[in-house]
Amino acid sequence: MKFIIQRDYLLRSVQDVMKAVSSRTTIPILTGIKIVANENGVTLTGSDSDISIESFIPLEHEDLEVVELVKSGSVVLQARVFSEIVKKLPKESVEIDVQNHFLTIIRSGKAEFNLNGLDAEEYPLLPQIEENDAFQVPSDLVKQLIRHTVFAVSTSETRPLLTGVNLKIENNELTCIATDSHRLALRKARIDLNTTDVSYNIVIPGKSLNELNKILDDSNDLVDIVITENQVLFKTKHILFFSRLLEGSYPDTSRLIPEESNTEMKVSAKEFLQAIDRASLLAREDRNNVVKLTILEGGVIEISSNSPEIGKVIEEVQSQSISGEDLKISFSSKYMLDALKVLGETDININFTGAMRPFVIRPLHDDSMLQLILPVRTY
Amino acid sequence: MKFIIQRDYLLRSVQDVMKAVSSRTTIPILTGIKIVANENGVTLTGSDSDISIESFIPLEHEDLEVVELVKSGSVVLQARVFSEIVKKLPKESVEIDVQNHFLTIIRSGKAEFNLNGLDAEEYPLLPQIEENDAFQVPSDLVKQLIRHTVFAVSTSETRPLLTGVNLKIENNELTCIATDSHRLALRKARIDLNTTDVSYNIVIPGKSLNELNKILDDSNDLVDIVITENQVLFKTKHILFFSRLLEGSYPDTSRLIPEESNTEMKVSAKEFLQAIDRASLLAREDRNNVVKLTILEGGVIEISSNSPEIGKVIEEVQSQSISGEDLKISFSSKYMLDALKVLGETDININFTGAMRPFVIRPLHDDSMLQLILPVRTY
Repeated sequence: MKFIIQRDYLLRSVQDVMKAVSSRTTIPILTGIKIVANENGVTLTGSDSDISIESFIPLEHEDLEVVELVKSGSVVLQARVFSEIVKKLPKESVEIDVQNHFLTIIRSGKAEFNLNGLDAEEYPLLPQIEENDAFQVPSDLVKQLIRHTVFAVSTSETRPLLTGVNLKIENNELTCIATDSHRLALRKARIDLNTTDVSYNIVIPGKSLNELNKILDDSNDLVDIVITENQVLFKTKHILFFSRLLEGSYPDTSRLIPEESNTEMKVSAKEFLQAIDRASLLAREDRNNVVKLTILEGGVIEISSNSPEIGKVIEEVQSQSISGEDLKISFSSKYMLDALKVLGETDININFTGAMRPFVIRPLHDDSMLQLILPVRTY
Repeated sequence: MKFIIQRDYLLRSVQDVMKAVSSRTTIPILTGIKIVANENGVTLTGSDSDISIESFIPLEHEDLEVVELVKSGSVVLQARVFSEIVKKLPKESVEIDVQNHFLTIIRSGKAEFNLNGLDAEEYPLLPQIEENDAFQVPSDLVKQLIRHTVFAVSTSETRPLLTGVNLKIENNELTCIATDSHRLALRKARIDLNTTDVSYNIVIPGKSLNELNKILDDSNDLVDIVITENQVLFKTKHILFFSRLLEGSYPDTSRLIPEESNTEMKVSAKEFLQAIDRASLLAREDRNNVVKLTILEGGVIEISSNSPEIGKVIEEVQSQSISGEDLKISFSSKYMLDALKVLGETDININFTGAMRPFVIRPLHDDSMLQLILPVRTY
C-alpha cells in the first residue's frame, strides 16, 4: 500500500475513528486503526467491539485531489501513536508507504516515521448490515434526541439495560427514553417512514450515543439509520457508526408518568435553574444534594437547603402562575439541574401530584419533551 | 460587621486569596477566608501557612463606591463554599452581615445564605514585615523571571532545597536559578537598588512562585519585594503575597556551566522544538523520553528516536550554522522541550563540550537567559 494524502482530511478521519478505539481492550489488534487504500479512496476503521466507526476519504473532494493512490493495500497501525503523529506532521501532505512485514513509513517534509504495522487481515470484520431498511433522520435532530435523554441513563451495571437509551418507533413517531429509576427523560419526534408498518423497540448503550453525538454535525444533513437484531448503524456521507444493542426488554415506563396533577406551576427554566444551582452549593457540601421546594404566598417558589455544619440558603423565584394545592417537596438538585439544562431558556410547566409522587417538567406548549424526577423523603 | 459590596470586586479578591487556601491543611481555620471590614475598606486573607495572600478592597475605586460600610468587624468563612457562592450570586451588589455567634448572612437579590462563621481572632497572624528595605521590579519582569526558571525545579523531596528557585541579588543584578540536578534554568535581570551594598541569596518554593505568577498582571506596574530571614513579601497596589523561604544554602551552580565549547550550532528555536516534539512521540511510548541528536553533512541536524516495539522516527532540521567537532548526543526530549518552550520564537545557540558533558542553550545576542541540560548515556 502506498498513497499521498492531504493531512487535514487524514487528521479529521483519524480523530473520528479514534472515538471507538479503547486502550483497555482485550483484543490487542483493536488498539490499532485499520487503513485500507484502493481505487475508491482510503478507509479508516476503529473499534472497541461495542462501537465500530468507519471513515471514508474519497480520492477527490470538491474538485480537489485529496488522495494520490500509488498502490492499493492495507495495514493496521497503533492508534494512539498514529493519531499523535498525524496531528504533529510538519507539512500539508503526507506519504504513507507499507513495506515488507507491514513496516510502514510515514513521510512529511523532513520528518520520517517507521512504524511496526500489523496485518489488516487479522482485524475483526465489521457487522454486515443490509441497508434496504434504512430510515432517515436529520443529523441535528439525532443530536437533540441524544442530548435530551442520554444524561439520565444509569451509571450502575446492576441493571445493564438501564445504561442504555430505549429507542422506539411506532406510527411514524420516534421516542427516546432514558431512566436510572430515580429520574426519567423522554423525547419524541415525527419521522418520515415510507410505511407505518415498521416498528422497533431497541436499547442503545448510552456510551455509544455519547460518542455518536460528538461525531455528528449540527446540520440538517440526513443520517441513515439501520436497525438489526443486535446492531444499529448510523450512516452519514463519509462515516459508518455501528453500535451493538443491549439485549432484553426495556421496562414499560409509561405507567411511571402521572396523568393527573394536583399542583401546577409555570416558571422560567433559566431563573429556576439559577436558584437551584445556588441552593445546591450547600446541598453539595453535605453530599446528599437535596433541596426543598415550598410554595409561598403570591406565586413565590421558595428553594432552600440546609447543611448543619456549613449553614443554610433560601432562594425565592417568582413563578408566572401556580394553581392547585400547596406543596412542600424535596428532591435531588443534581437531577433537577440536569433536566433544566436540556430545557434551555424556555418557560416550563411543572406538575406535581404530591410530596411523595414523581413530578413532571415540560416545556410550555411543547409535548415532545418530558423530564420526570422522583422526590426524596425528608419529613 | 456589616457592609454592602460590588460583587465583581469581591469575586476578584476572593479568587486571588483562594490561591493560598488548601483543603489539605492541618490547621482547620485555614480552610477559611478571613474578612475584615473597617473605615479603610475590606481586607480578605487566605493562607496555607507556606503562602499567605492578603487582598484589599478600598471603599472607593475610580470615583465609584465599591463598599458601603455599615459596621466594622471581622469573620472567617469557609473558603470553598464562600467562593462558590460569590461566583453565583444573582445581583451586582452583595450584603454581608455578621450576627451573633459569627452567623453570617449573605444577601443578593432574592438569594439569602446563612453561613456558620468563625472568630477572626483565632486566625493566625501574618508575618510582620518592615517595608523599609523594599526594592521594586516591574510586574511583567517578575512573571518572566518565574516562567523562565520555575519549571526546572525538582519535584522530588529528597533534596528539599532544589524544589525552590534560588534568587540572588548582587551589584544591582538579580539572578534566578532552578535545577533538579538533570537540567538547570537561569535568568538574570538588572534592577535599580538605591545602593550596591545590598545582597541577598534566598530560596523561594517553586509552588509559591507558580501561584504568584497567576496573581500578577502582565503590566509594568512596580512590585515591591521585601526579603527577611525566613519570608519574602511581594506587594502590589492591592495585594500582599507572603511566602516562607526554604532553609539552607543553595548549591553553587556556577561550576556546572561549562565555559568552553567544542561544538556550536545556531538554529531556530521553533523549528528545533517542532522536530524534537515529533521525535518525542515515540520516545514517550518507551517511557525513557530519550532522543538522539547527530550532526550530518551541510549543517543538517538529525533528531532520531527508536522504540523497538512501535518503530522509529528520523527528523532533519537545517541549522543556520554549525562549527567545531562532529557530535552524537542523547538527551531527554522532555527537558529539551521545556527549555525550548520558554525560549519562544527566537534563534538560539547550543554549545556542546562532548557527548557526556552538559550542554548550554542561549538565545542569540542575549546573555540574560541560559538553559543547561545533562545528556543521557546511550552508547
